[in-house]
Amino acid sequence: MKKLINDPAAVVSEALVGVAAAYPELRVDHASKTIMRGDAPRPGKVGLVSGGGSGHEPMHGGFVGPGMLDAACCGEVFTSPVPDQIVAATHAVNGGAGVLHIVKNYTGDVLNFQMAAEITAADGIEVLQVLVNDDVAVQDSTWTAGRRGVGTTVLLEKLAGAAAEQGRTLREVADVASQVSANGRSMGIALTSCTVPVHGRPTFELGDGEMEFGVGIHGEPGRRRLPIAPAKEIAAMLTEPVLDDLPFSGGDQVIAFLNGLGASPLLELYLMYGEVASILASRGIQVARNLVGSYMTSLDMAGCSLTLLRVDDDLLRLWDAPVKTPALRWGI
Amino acid sequence: MKKLINDPAAVVSEALVGVAAAYPELRVDHASKTIMRGDAPRPGKVGLVSGGGSGHEPMHGGFVGPGMLDAACCGEVFTSPVPDQIVAATHAVNGGAGVLHIVKNYTGDVLNFQMAAEITAADGIEVLQVLVNDDVAVQDSTWTAGRRGVGTTVLLEKLAGAAAEQGRTLREVADVASQVSANGRSMGIALTSCTVPVHGRPTFELGDGEMEFGVGIHGEPGRRRLPIAPAKEIAAMLTEPVLDDLPFSGGDQVIAFLNGLGASPLLELYLMYGEVASILASRGIQVARNLVGSYMTSLDMAGCSLTLLRVDDDLLRLWDAPVKTPALRWGI
Repeated sequence: MKKLINDPAAVVSEALVGVAAAYPELRVDHASKTIMRGDAPRPGKVGLVSGGGSGHEPMHGGFVGPGMLDAACCGEVFTSPVPDQIVAATHAVNGGAGVLHIVKNYTGDVLNFQMAAEITAADGIEVLQVLVNDDVAVQDSTWTAGRRGVGTTVLLEKLAGAAAEQGRTLREVADVASQVSANGRSMGIALTSCTVPVHGRPTFELGDGEMEFGVGIHGEPGRRRLPIAPAKEIAAMLTEPVLDDLPFSGGDQVIAFLNGLGASPLLELYLMYGEVASILASRGIQVARNLVGSYMTSLDMAGCSLTLLRVDDDLLRLWDAPVKTPALRWGI
Repeated sequence: MKKLINDPAAVVSEALVGVAAAYPELRVDHASKTIMRGDAPRPGKVGLVSGGGSGHEPMHGGFVGPGMLDAACCGEVFTSPVPDQIVAATHAVNGGAGVLHIVKNYTGDVLNFQMAAEITAADGIEVLQVLVNDDVAVQDSTWTAGRRGVGTTVLLEKLAGAAAEQGRTLREVADVASQVSANGRSMGIALTSCTVPVHGRPTFELGDGEMEFGVGIHGEPGRRRLPIAPAKEIAAMLTEPVLDDLPFSGGDQVIAFLNGLGASPLLELYLMYGEVASILASRGIQVARNLVGSYMTSLDMAGCSLTLLRVDDDLLRLWDAPVKTPALRWGI
């Protein structure tokens, strides 16, 4: 295992020291491993809390800031945050207008966010939850009942964050989040495994000429293992099942998100995006906005995922609204 | 070799198709493999042209846009752009106020930019050049006479870009660029090699427990090969030679840039930044701004580099000025 780390068991807490140093406009609570907006709580604004296992950076901590999340709870690598962390974050960002929990559909995350929601509700904080389960690759998986939550999460955190920043109510922000969750679909492919620091060896084995089609963001098995294929074929293998699932139709407006899983160079992601854009054009899908880069990663996994989100004009306005976070920033 | 590509020889031209699709506000000239601001030339504004071998994305193409470069010439992977490309780009962005060429110190780049400058000067365009040679690792290397040009380039393109956007003259913009070049120092370390698509095999071999200290961005040898060390030690190995070289002194204000070489997860880069920030604090160096992420990469190489740039208030104002490019964006 070759990593820029000290003690494998201390990676998350030590990375948070770096986050605190790099982003003085954020507040890092090292005890609860939570990254918050420096100005939280914002009176009258709906609070947005997400979180999950670490190892997917910049998600979620890199999405904390004006126009996006109020707090991100950082679990250990590929491990859900515990309810205490989520409770602390929810209290910390509650500005009196309620708090939305954004939860990816993994069993541990779902249980822990649910427990935290019950505790904070008992404390008198109104909490709603949105579940992201957009991965069309497989139904049920190693850590999931139903579909896994993947790339749509990034877009949802931006869009719901913009809605909250506008002063919409908790119900309205939750409605935006639900709309995004219902209209987003994703699929991923891995060329290599990733290596969890405390394990010290690759999570799964892939032959020199193999790829895992439909891989999960923790290295969970996908639909099948296939011989490695040219980018043009991989693009079709990712795009077609996503389009067919919702289904998306000619004339639909989408945000297209080509995401790197960590170790794939941006040069390859640009190339893949070109292939995907060509397929979408041939199907009459109108790409209104796009995002290309490594925003929801799996440590050092090589590969990529595609997310398509069907949008209306309200979602596009929310997308264009200012945002200032470590990983997504414009207009501020 | 596992890559998201089609024909290894067509990677750059196919990636440019993706860049054109993803960033409609830019103009991609596929014939000359040049990425330009969509609104170039800007009358009365000094034009900024950079470029180099591909494989270092987002540098340089991802730095094209208002407040940064006017054009980036994309060579083949790890290969200088040819003079014709640079001449075409210089003509395309010339708004009558002259053009600055930003050149990293590699023999091919230096020769080709020099030839292009002579041709465009003969065409009546005033061209000045700034050379970046900030890598303290080694004097001379595989492709370099003198020091290699690395991370300072990213900061220079932002700062000179802001100066040009403000309407400064060619001489003034070149002075800013020279100041940055003179005050920036870098050092990098590789945990793995990278693989150039047309070669299909790693550029160099590193044992399971080894790292290359002082590596170049094309995999050129560094100072020495060492057993892999904890992040804290690596941070000291990178920071001390950089500090000692200029030298930086207690009380100096710097922009600290912790750069990923491609395959190292952001989680590790955050952790490394924390270690570096701690060393800088202990030496009395004041980090006025920072940048953490993979901005100047070496394809799929794991590792990182540190750049420190000594700044004054003018450079800080230029850093904070609005920028809108694929990879660096704020205020717009």
